[in-house]
Amino acid sequence: MADYVEGKRAVIEALRTDVPLKKVLLADNAKRDPLVEDILRKTRQRDIPVINVPKAELDQKSARGSHQGVLAETRPFPYVGLGDIIGGAEAYAAEHGGRALVVVCDHLTDAGNLGAVIRSAEAVGACGLVIPNKRSARVEASTYKSSAGAVAHLPIAQTSNMVSALERFKKEGFWSCAATEQSANDLWDVNLKGRIALVLGNEHEGVSHLVLEHCDMAGRLPMLGSVESLNVAQAATACMYEWLRQNL
Amino acid sequence: MADYVEGKRAVIEALRTDVPLKKVLLADNAKRDPLVEDILRKTRQRDIPVINVPKAELDQKSARGSHQGVLAETRPFPYVGLGDIIGGAEAYAAEHGGRALVVVCDHLTDAGNLGAVIRSAEAVGACGLVIPNKRSARVEASTYKSSAGAVAHLPIAQTSNMVSALERFKKEGFWSCAATEQSANDLWDVNLKGRIALVLGNEHEGVSHLVLEHCDMAGRLPMLGSVESLNVAQAATACMYEWLRQNL
Repeated sequence: MADYVEGKRAVIEALRTDVPLKKVLLADNAKRDPLVEDILRKTRQRDIPVINVPKAELDQKSARGSHQGVLAETRPFPYVGLGDIIGGAEAYAAEHGGRALVVVCDHLTDAGNLGAVIRSAEAVGACGLVIPNKRSARVEASTYKSSAGAVAHLPIAQTSNMVSALERFKKEGFWSCAATEQSANDLWDVNLKGRIALVLGNEHEGVSHLVLEHCDMAGRLPMLGSVESLNVAQAATACMYEWLRQNL
Repeated sequence: MADYVEGKRAVIEALRTDVPLKKVLLADNAKRDPLVEDILRKTRQRDIPVINVPKAELDQKSARGSHQGVLAETRPFPYVGLGDIIGGAEAYAAEHGGRALVVVCDHLTDAGNLGAVIRSAEAVGACGLVIPNKRSARVEASTYKSSAGAVAHLPIAQTSNMVSALERFKKEGFWSCAATEQSANDLWDVNLKGRIALVLGNEHEGVSHLVLEHCDMAGRLPMLGSVESLNVAQAATACMYEWLRQNL
């Protein structure tokens, strides 16, 4: 997560969408306009400390120079380990007829898409989501909004190596399935029963060759129109509900 | 569709996403900056006339006063009639084993959501989409982008009366199915084979009572998380692919 949220409206939005905040820094020369009053009211309700600092300190901490006298320091997003997700999935599967879904995002680039995927994953009862720790959208303050708050309810892990993460899931009894237009099989003809690691590709190239090679199965959503492809979050939702349909 | 797109970047975006434009009005005192040069180049490539007018004329035509010396006049979106959609669906069904999908949007309010629904509808091979002509998101210049261009490929009708539109579809051999969390049936337990009018509710209240009463069937996507609901466009995508799965 970005360390700081800057600017009055952005800080209000972060407070409104329950982004975990450590503290709010307010320039000691900031005018008490209605936006600042709103920030003070919301921080008071949520027990978030407000600290008056010289404007120069905000200038120094600001990444974009658009702080307008207000910076909120966020708490680091509490990523979990792969082992936590696997443990949670074991417990979930034991209580839910053996089904468990983990979503593996192969280098999504758009933070809004990541949020939307998180929202759908949480809605179908997924046990966790895995993202790369480099060259990938990650959980930011804006993800709280784009996921409609679901990011606070879904365990998310970062990995430095997608292939070894997949191998680990496979060793723990998961079948891995890539959602890719390159597959010759419609997704509903693929057996998604039980513990599944669903692999989603990025917005432009889809699932990478290397990752695809390490998947047990692959399925596509048929595209029957003249537009080249679905938005990744919409495709992800259809895939996740197909997993749920086969398992319920 | 909005009559005018205003401002340099908005006009460039409209040109880039192939919004049908009648002409571009340029203030005769407008500076030839790189953005204006880009507009002149793109309009030339697309054979769209650029007309120099006094700035006062733009001020008068501008709805938001943010024209920056540039206004593009859009062509009205070519809505079709219900009869056109029904005729197209008949022809499609005859060639595709009897299947045809029409999507009925019960007062969506967000133009971005409407665009996303249009994109998915086009991807599954839907034969058309129906929206109310009042209190509803409609096709605007921004819909070209949010639908990834699919709006140019899907017949869309406006209706003054959702219930009579549904009745018309039913008379023509369609079964109507509402996607609603209020249903006791999972969507995949509902028979979606053949000609289906899929009814989607709005972002806040879902499908209205009156419209729901006139649907033959209803189904829900199970929500197993702690977040209250899916985004309407994501839910719509899952529902449309369930229709396609049952029919392919």
